[in-house]
Amino acid sequence: METPLHWYALSAVVLFLKMFGISLYQGYCRIGRQQFKNPEDAAFVHRAPATEELPQVQRAARAWLNDVENIPIFLALGIAYVQLGLSAAAAPWLFGLFTLARIAHTLCYLAGLQPWRTVAYSVGIGSTLWMSAMILGAVL
Amino acid sequence: METPLHWYALSAVVLFLKMFGISLYQGYCRIGRQQFKNPEDAAFVHRAPATEELPQVQRAARAWLNDVENIPIFLALGIAYVQLGLSAAAAPWLFGLFTLARIAHTLCYLAGLQPWRTVAYSVGIGSTLWMSAMILGAVL
Amino acid sequence: METPLHWYALSAVVLFLKMFGISLYQGYCRIGRQQFKNPEDAAFVHRAPATEELPQVQRAARAWLNDVENIPIFLALGIAYVQLGLSAAAAPWLFGLFTLARIAHTLCYLAGLQPWRTVAYSVGIGSTLWMSAMILGAVL
Repeated sequence: METPLHWYALSAVVLFLKMFGISLYQGYCRIGRQQFKNPEDAAFVHRAPATEELPQVQRAARAWLNDVENIPIFLALGIAYVQLGLSAAAAPWLFGLFTLARIAHTLCYLAGLQPWRTVAYSVGIGSTLWMSAMILGAVL
Repeated sequence: METPLHWYALSAVVLFLKMFGISLYQGYCRIGRQQFKNPEDAAFVHRAPATEELPQVQRAARAWLNDVENIPIFLALGIAYVQLGLSAAAAPWLFGLFTLARIAHTLCYLAGLQPWRTVAYSVGIGSTLWMSAMILGAVL
Repeated sequence: METPLHWYALSAVVLFLKMFGISLYQGYCRIGRQQFKNPEDAAFVHRAPATEELPQVQRAARAWLNDVENIPIFLALGIAYVQLGLSAAAAPWLFGLFTLARIAHTLCYLAGLQPWRTVAYSVGIGSTLWMSAMILGAVL
């Protein structure tokens, strides 16, 4: 963990595992209640398709949608940060803070905890804005 | 702004800020009307949860979904373009055109302007196809 | 196709074309049936807006959402794999298997084929987990 590339790589792995965790959680809910929206999925367990996903599956989907709105663009900025050779001292803070904030965001979303979900979201956005400012300072 | 990496980095920052703008716009609509779908969000302002998001929040969500379908894959191709050492002369056009097209797409979507939204979408896809062709030419 | 970067670049291009294919399929369905949810799109062909998207457009949207949940994070890990200089021998397998699995996933989703869609999804996740393990081995 000596270089920004290592921090980038570690946070990409952790964020992937976190999102995969949501997928497992959704599968666990769907299988536990035998409730599937896709007809071919319901047919596989000899059930009628559900008209709606379970509430906790919908909630997990909203948490995941927030992930796909925030994580790929952060990682796209992160690789620019690495390639531009920006501060190695700031890298653990930027990548670490973002990653922890997104884990907290998912947990707060699944548990319905406010204002903590918004706090976690804001820390993630703050890390991304900070990284953006450093990148702009380097390229402009 | 001498190298393709600089153009990649600048467009990643601008596209992040553009998407963050949609987030602020959604928050502004939700807070202005005090209308929240998540029960924990509504409870925070002592309201009953809304059954549906506001129409302008839903519209902004569709614009953002189109972003997450198009922007991360463009940036993934963009870093391949940078790493493969492809044309520095074409980089400002490819990255600049895509970024401006996505800004125009969001504005047209929020304002409900057709056929301009489709024109902006097509310019973005055109840039991505052009970049894809250059990458294929280099790797195959 | 000698280096991991070449495999990364080729799989990014193919995955972009695959997602763009879903977009064309959706447009083809909407235009064929003249059914549009956005009022400005419906007005453009002198129609009333539809209350819901067509079933096959919704199905394609679910396939695409699964793409945006899985493809950008894989490519973010992929560029880390390239930058860390990991195994050139494993690269064709990791990038090739993931890309083929995602193509199969989309085809199975559009055709409603189970358990094949879940098999394809699992192969994609397996490639991503394998790549994650190799990255962790290199950075920790």
